[in-house]
Amino acid sequence: MADRVGYTVDVEAAGQLQCFLDGRHAALRRETRARLSALPLDKADGLGRDDYRDLVLEWTKGLGLAGDGARSFPVAYGGQDDPGGRIATFQTVGHSDLSLLVKMGVQFGLFGGAIHRLGTRKHHDAYLRDIGTLELPGCFAMSEIGHGSDVRSLRTQARYDAEAGEFVLHTPDETARKDWIGGAALHARVAVVFAQLDVAGQAQGVHAFVVPIRSADGEVLDGVEIEDCGDKMGLQGVDNGRLRFHAVRVPRDNLLDRFGSVSAEGVYTSPVASPGARFFTMIGALVEGRICIAGAGLAVARNALTIAVRWGERRQQFGTGLEADTPLMDYLTHQRRLLPAICESYVLQAAHDHLTDSYVALLDGGEGQRDVEALAAGLKAVATWHTVQAVQQARECCGGKGYLTENRFASLRGDSDVFVTFEGDNTVLMQLVAKTLLSDYAAQFEDLDAFGMVRSLTSRQAGRLLGGLSRRAADLDDPVWQAEALAFREDRLVDSLARRLRTLVKDGTDPLRALALCQDHALAAARAHVERHAHELFRERATSPLLQQVRDLGALSTIERDRAWWLEHGYLSADDSRALQKKVNVLCADLRPQALTLVAGFGIPDALLRAPIATAV
Amino acid sequence: MADRVGYTVDVEAAGQLQCFLDGRHAALRRETRARLSALPLDKADGLGRDDYRDLVLEWTKGLGLAGDGARSFPVAYGGQDDPGGRIATFQTVGHSDLSLLVKMGVQFGLFGGAIHRLGTRKHHDAYLRDIGTLELPGCFAMSEIGHGSDVRSLRTQARYDAEAGEFVLHTPDETARKDWIGGAALHARVAVVFAQLDVAGQAQGVHAFVVPIRSADGEVLDGVEIEDCGDKMGLQGVDNGRLRFHAVRVPRDNLLDRFGSVSAEGVYTSPVASPGARFFTMIGALVEGRICIAGAGLAVARNALTIAVRWGERRQQFGTGLEADTPLMDYLTHQRRLLPAICESYVLQAAHDHLTDSYVALLDGGEGQRDVEALAAGLKAVATWHTVQAVQQARECCGGKGYLTENRFASLRGDSDVFVTFEGDNTVLMQLVAKTLLSDYAAQFEDLDAFGMVRSLTSRQAGRLLGGLSRRAADLDDPVWQAEALAFREDRLVDSLARRLRTLVKDGTDPLRALALCQDHALAAARAHVERHAHELFRERATSPLLQQVRDLGALSTIERDRAWWLEHGYLSADDSRALQKKVNVLCADLRPQALTLVAGFGIPDALLRAPIATAV
Repeated sequence: MADRVGYTVDVEAAGQLQCFLDGRHAALRRETRARLSALPLDKADGLGRDDYRDLVLEWTKGLGLAGDGARSFPVAYGGQDDPGGRIATFQTVGHSDLSLLVKMGVQFGLFGGAIHRLGTRKHHDAYLRDIGTLELPGCFAMSEIGHGSDVRSLRTQARYDAEAGEFVLHTPDETARKDWIGGAALHARVAVVFAQLDVAGQAQGVHAFVVPIRSADGEVLDGVEIEDCGDKMGLQGVDNGRLRFHAVRVPRDNLLDRFGSVSAEGVYTSPVASPGARFFTMIGALVEGRICIAGAGLAVARNALTIAVRWGERRQQFGTGLEADTPLMDYLTHQRRLLPAICESYVLQAAHDHLTDSYVALLDGGEGQRDVEALAAGLKAVATWHTVQAVQQARECCGGKGYLTENRFASLRGDSDVFVTFEGDNTVLMQLVAKTLLSDYAAQFEDLDAFGMVRSLTSRQAGRLLGGLSRRAADLDDPVWQAEALAFREDRLVDSLARRLRTLVKDGTDPLRALALCQDHALAAARAHVERHAHELFRERATSPLLQQVRDLGALSTIERDRAWWLEHGYLSADDSRALQKKVNVLCADLRPQALTLVAGFGIPDALLRAPIATAV
Repeated sequence: MADRVGYTVDVEAAGQLQCFLDGRHAALRRETRARLSALPLDKADGLGRDDYRDLVLEWTKGLGLAGDGARSFPVAYGGQDDPGGRIATFQTVGHSDLSLLVKMGVQFGLFGGAIHRLGTRKHHDAYLRDIGTLELPGCFAMSEIGHGSDVRSLRTQARYDAEAGEFVLHTPDETARKDWIGGAALHARVAVVFAQLDVAGQAQGVHAFVVPIRSADGEVLDGVEIEDCGDKMGLQGVDNGRLRFHAVRVPRDNLLDRFGSVSAEGVYTSPVASPGARFFTMIGALVEGRICIAGAGLAVARNALTIAVRWGERRQQFGTGLEADTPLMDYLTHQRRLLPAICESYVLQAAHDHLTDSYVALLDGGEGQRDVEALAAGLKAVATWHTVQAVQQARECCGGKGYLTENRFASLRGDSDVFVTFEGDNTVLMQLVAKTLLSDYAAQFEDLDAFGMVRSLTSRQAGRLLGGLSRRAADLDDPVWQAEALAFREDRLVDSLARRLRTLVKDGTDPLRALALCQDHALAAARAHVERHAHELFRERATSPLLQQVRDLGALSTIERDRAWWLEHGYLSADDSRALQKKVNVLCADLRPQALTLVAGFGIPDALLRAPIATAV
């Protein structure tokens, strides 16, 4: 068509979007993008597994030395005391090689984070500097084959031998085998091992120990047994391994003793009185990992969406009802597959920023650990499921081109797919969210005081519920209506879940059994919570007209997806619901000219996208 | 728990299920499974791309010689004149290595099928026997880079040179480059090339030509240019390539001339008068490919679901609310992720069987080509999207275990992902379905006689519509209610689509533009059609109590997924809709003890599953 004007990037608007996404760590993200762009990432293409692992180790070391390794460590150990910056950096690495991402996460985040957060001065002095520079490669040995999602039930043993002044680490049977330990198969010289501490026959719960597993020249140490997990669907540059310990002895100082220590004579003391609280304090280390994976998942989705939009602008589709030179992006189905996902990607970033800030505040001595943990769990699940969906849609939108390895979907998908099941399986994480929603004191619930929990909850929710019920007429254009619709769903789902549980428990069902019976309900409540929360945060920051379009399409497509729920609860009439679908179509059409701008706002350099079909148009 | 009794396979019931799925080709499927089980499929694991391709060629040859190559060819050429058998065999190969599947599909189905169906006696004599034994490896060069989904617009030229008595095949520019041609990169010696026939300056439309591309010793012939498509997300054992022709000359006999021939003097004649009809007759060859891919997609989904269910029975999940030794399959979320997909897999097989029968009848001279084409398009799309979903859910249900290459999800997913975009992009295919639904005479619609089309349609639909409207009270247990709900949705969606189009066209919108504006509506109508059709066919054959449970969960979970639609149309009340969700939970719980039996019914030998986590329990 002679008169067709191609859409181009609105550079000014894209810059504002990038500013929004980069947030308070803009300079650091910019610097990281430049550093990543300078890496010869293509060297990994087609490389054999072992070479790829070595290459990733080398890259990790380079980034470590450049400052990314110790970023969250104290200044005294070469760091910058900047955990928020570390999380932002990690997300940025999510635009590049994901084996590199996970390798960095293991070394600096999990391994380094455990030494930093669970250890004390003596451990920091001994290890932190060398961790940040990768002089000391390590691993984080928590997961066991039989207890992937329940750390409290780990079975690796750590018995204190007072006579020798040593701990004896032991794998009693196959279910206690450490599994999926990144770094263990090849590079790690030291493992932080989570094990059940036994002092003089007294079980003191899970504690973390520094356990050397390889000599400086890479020999596996006596009593340590290591296997490679083998080939994986992705992340082949990460050396995941299995660990077994056969009465391995480490000095008493190797207990990371910030939250519990053992005297030479064998007396256990802890600054945290309750074993339950102590446990939760200790596994707080996992929270940062989940925040990081949520952020990285969003980054991966953005790579995929960028590639698909750029191809969709360039690729013309023939013979399906429009003019012969109509770009794919002009088609409604194409818009519906990509634009709501792009909006969601912006919306979830607002939640991620807020979560990062809350987490940093917590580290600085703030309150609300349970809330941060619940949000980290919920956002990790919602964001990584979003990743899987967005990557798949984007791949399909690129047809055969998307199937070619060179266009990156193979690695984007293969590498990120495990995000939905590692660092806590998403389904399990969403149940944690639901439990937290059901009570500000989940411990109370786990202590089976379900009646008290349910009573306190229903009264707490009542206020918001009534507010929700009084506002029914659908005004799709009104962000307040969108907000209230999302809040109404959350409140009602939590309220009805609590009622169902109360009824079941009243009738004699064990409370945990009752929760299992309502599992789908609990997942729906958790999702409603995360979505309401994320859209609320985004709405507050959606100040430009373009961000407001993103807000509207993001919120209305979210509501549309689950519109049956609002129909069932009389919040949407049948006419409202049909209008909602039309509105989503209209918003797609309205936003469509900005598609290239929206992905330009993701700010991913071509050197990181590395997809021939996506070179900037 | 001491008193827990594990579920086991009900061998009798599993046998009946397998009987249902194997259908009329049970003996052949059994024989094929045995033949596939004897192949050393593990040899492909970790193999480099080139070695893998050679191995697949060797396997293909072996299966060809064993009878799978010529199965649909005439007896005179070593065949069995059994296209239905070929389709069943192909589906069975879908349980094994998918590169082997696609290689067989290209050689025997596309390449052989084109020679068989588009050629005449002289071509059959010259090629068919050697195709079936793979003495003559070939390829099917239809797709072009610029015209993936619209064969009619292909741009490769075939000009008849009357003086020389030859056709001159030529690639005029880069958009006419043949792309994604399986077999072209390495093994094919001959290509069936689809090109625009030009006889004495007269365009005669797309025809197929036999074009040698390599010598017997593998040298690429003069004027032919071949590139490898490169690494792919999966199917690395298939040598996809790109072809360009530079004034390549072939004898006049190399036109596959069943539907159009050129005399030595350069006079074009065809037994099919209308160019439109001729074109559709000619690309009827594509229909069998789509039927085959639909069947293979169902097979792949079954592998994934079998692995996940077996692991879900064995794997215990801790600390999420049930007893410590509760298998994953006891959890509602796990049941909801796997059981409806299993039911859908059974349901869609009924549609596949029916489609195969209709196709075979068509080859035998029966009526209804357009219907078969539409159903093949629709079932291919719905079945392969089902594959993507089922494989993803199954992978997630297996957690980290599912991420290990050894447990097969990497290849199940990577290899089958292209199913949704090749042999016709699913989105485009669903639009074809919608067009067929809109009129028994799609040609009429494409000739822009939209008014006539819409008028004829709305009166045709009126009868069924009224029937649907009169039956509103939800009786979820009643298969007649389930059937009517699905029929009501289809009828209403098609009716409202027609009305919208009519209004748009009345207001001056170009009819094809109007269809593009209603694209999401068209896709919904197409899906509603395929689902109604499949469930109808399954219902008729669901004679055992277990199959009736499958029918109920299959139908109700299908309705549940799109329940907003029925709510919007007053067919479900809010209470009905809530009851529907509860009912799906109950049906999941009811069917859960049969989970192992349901996947045993898929009848996939361990030698084909090859997943350590799925060795029969």
